[in-house]
Parts: sequence; C-alpha cells; structure tokens
Amino acid sequence: MRIITISREFASGGRELGKRLAEALGFAYYDSEIINEIVKHTDYDAGFIDKVSDGAVSFNFHYGRTFGFSINQPAIDVLAAQHKVITALSEKRDCVIVGRMGDIILAKKNPLKIFVYSDPENKIKRCRERGELHSEATDRQILRKCRQIDSGRKKTHDTFAPIRWGDRRGYNLMVNTAGIKIADLIPGLKEYAEGWFDKK
Amino acid sequence: MRIITISREFASGGRELGKRLAEALGFAYYDSEIINEIVKHTDYDAGFIDKVSDGAVSFNFHYGRTFGFSINQPAIDVLAAQHKVITALSEKRDCVIVGRMGDIILAKKNPLKIFVYSDPENKIKRCRERGELHSEATDRQILRKCRQIDSGRKKTHDTFAPIRWGDRRGYNLMVNTAGIKIADLIPGLKEYAEGWFDKK
Repeated sequence: MRIITISREFASGGRELGKRLAEALGFAYYDSEIINEIVKHTDYDAGFIDKVSDGAVSFNFHYGRTFGFSINQPAIDVLAAQHKVITALSEKRDCVIVGRMGDIILAKKNPLKIFVYSDPENKIKRCRERGELHSEATDRQILRKCRQIDSGRKKTHDTFAPIRWGDRRGYNLMVNTAGIKIADLIPGLKEYAEGWFDKK
Repeated sequence: MRIITISREFASGGRELGKRLAEALGFAYYDSEIINEIVKHTDYDAGFIDKVSDGAVSFNFHYGRTFGFSINQPAIDVLAAQHKVITALSEKRDCVIVGRMGDIILAKKNPLKIFVYSDPENKIKRCRERGELHSEATDRQILRKCRQIDSGRKKTHDTFAPIRWGDRRGYNLMVNTAGIKIADLIPGLKEYAEGWFDKK
C-alpha cells in the first residue's frame, strides 16, 4: 500500500492539501473515519477522542511543584485505539492520513511523510475565512491560538517520536503554503508522490 | 523572470537536483558562471572566490580572547561582487541558482526557494561515489566534513539573513533526497515549480 502522512501547522491548509491530494491520486482520505472507528473501539465520545488525537490533551497530570504525576488513562486508551484503527485503515487502501500521528504510527510502512506549514499572514487569513475563531478576534489572538494548538501537537508527537515535530529530518517533503493557492500545488505534489512511490 | 534558488546540506544532492531541474524546465543553470564573472570583477582567484562563496571563509578575524576583530576585506569584496553578478544573471533569463546566497541576494524578486537535505547514510554514499574525500576516510570522518561545510554555509547565511539557514520558514519547499534517486523527483518538482510560478 502507498501511504501519505500529512503533518501540519495549524491553519496552514494541511487538511485541504491532504484532501485534494488524495482526490488527485485516487487515494482514500481518512479523517473523520478515524474518529468514528475509535468511537467503536472505546467508551469515549467523539469530541474527547478528537481532542486527544489532535494533541489537545495531556497524557499525565503533574501535581503542583512536586515531581509526582498520574497517567491520564482515557487519553492513553484513545491513543492505543487510534494506533489500531490507523494501522488497519492503512492496510485497506492507498491512503492519505492527515495528522493523528499517522507518520509515527505507520513509520515502518515507509509512508511519504509531508509537513505543511505557512506564514503568520496566511494563517490569519485562513482562520478568518474558516470562521473558526469569533469574528472579533485580533490577529494576535489568532496567532496565539495557532501557537497553542501547534504546541499541543508538538508535545504529543515528541512524546512518542525520536525526531521532533517540525524537524525536517522527520519528513520527506516540507511544503510552505504561504502566498499560493493550495489547488495550484496539487498537480506537482501528485507527480512528486507518484515518482516517490514508483521508483524507490 | 522566474528564479529558483537552491540551498542545500552538503552531499544531499542539491547541485544535481538543481541542474536536472533547470534542464527539465528549460531554465539557465548558473554555477561556475558565477565564479567566472566574479573573477572578472575582482582581483581574486577562482579558488578563493569559490571558498568565500560557499561559506568556507570568515568575514572577520577575532583576536584571541578579546572582543577585537578585523574585517576580512577580500571576503567582503567577493561577496559584494557576487551580489552584483547574481543580480545581473537573474535578470537575463529564467534560472536556477544553487547556493551562493542566491536566496538572500534575490529575495525581493520572489524566487521559489528550495532547500535540499538528506540523511547521514545517503550523504556518506554520495561522498564515496563522488570520491571527494580520500578513499580511506571513515564514515565518521565523512560526516564530520559534511557538518563542517554546512556550518560554514550556515554561518555565512545567518550573518546576512533574518531567518536562519535550514529553518523551514526561509523556504517554499524542502526536499529530502534520502532513499530516492534525484532523477525520479524531477517530474514532480518541475510540475510543482510551474504551478508555483503560474498561479501565484
């Protein structure tokens, strides 16, 4: 199976890029399917699963200033289920998986690992277009939100991977979406992916 | 004019990639031309110019443990000439420029900035194939040499650019050549570059 994993900075357009690339290549695009499958395998609701899956939940709780901590068992359960679900999905069809630690979970299957990023200006634009934050949010507030989400993704990723989130050595290709429409990058990325899978 | 600048880790295949990509796109590929032109504009020989141009020469000399230093005027002269030469060449034809601070010098012309990198295993292989180091060099010695050269490039780059060498924010696309033949990446990169120039 040919697998493309997409890691991304928040508001960089990684999801749009993944969806369009999957469509262009005729690959499956797994996103909400992953959450739905995890719901079947665990006792947690989709909202909580989505949060864990996107790095918005810690795996342990620290107690004040001591070194004590307790494991966040529900979060660990979700991760374990996610591992199973993503592995199973990747064996069904050629696919594109956005986020959800696909790059780490499927590392042994030699996926094409893409990292998508952008600049502050374009992130603000994208956030406003998507209307994800309340419309009165200032640019600074939007960027702070972006940094917070990325920092959660990074923390989750770095807990389980030997190479840090966003470090070029962990990816095969890093795409900057600043100043360009994502649709215009797809023909090139399709061709790139085909070359990468056919010849190596 | 459409300009592609290629920054690269030593032994990652950046030069080969640049040459092949220029050929595929029908762009000029500037490499030794740059040195030859600088020779015409300065009193220094090609060997020295090449070293300065590739980051192997410091721009200032520090005195022991004091804070005193003196400027390396010949190196500065070469950089100034390089600036003029690269600017002039970029105005003649669509082109690919590998290294030589093309990304910084031509920043205002909005080039497609590509960074090429690889993993240690492939760098060793490439160095041995090229026979650049003596054949008894150990893997460790080869990698040390790679790091030294990259560190020179980084130092020169970071002296003049606001974003550090190798930091993804300074590039539009970062290509990992590990585990793949560069020729197989060219059709995708060509298409990518065309999309990038046509639509933005």
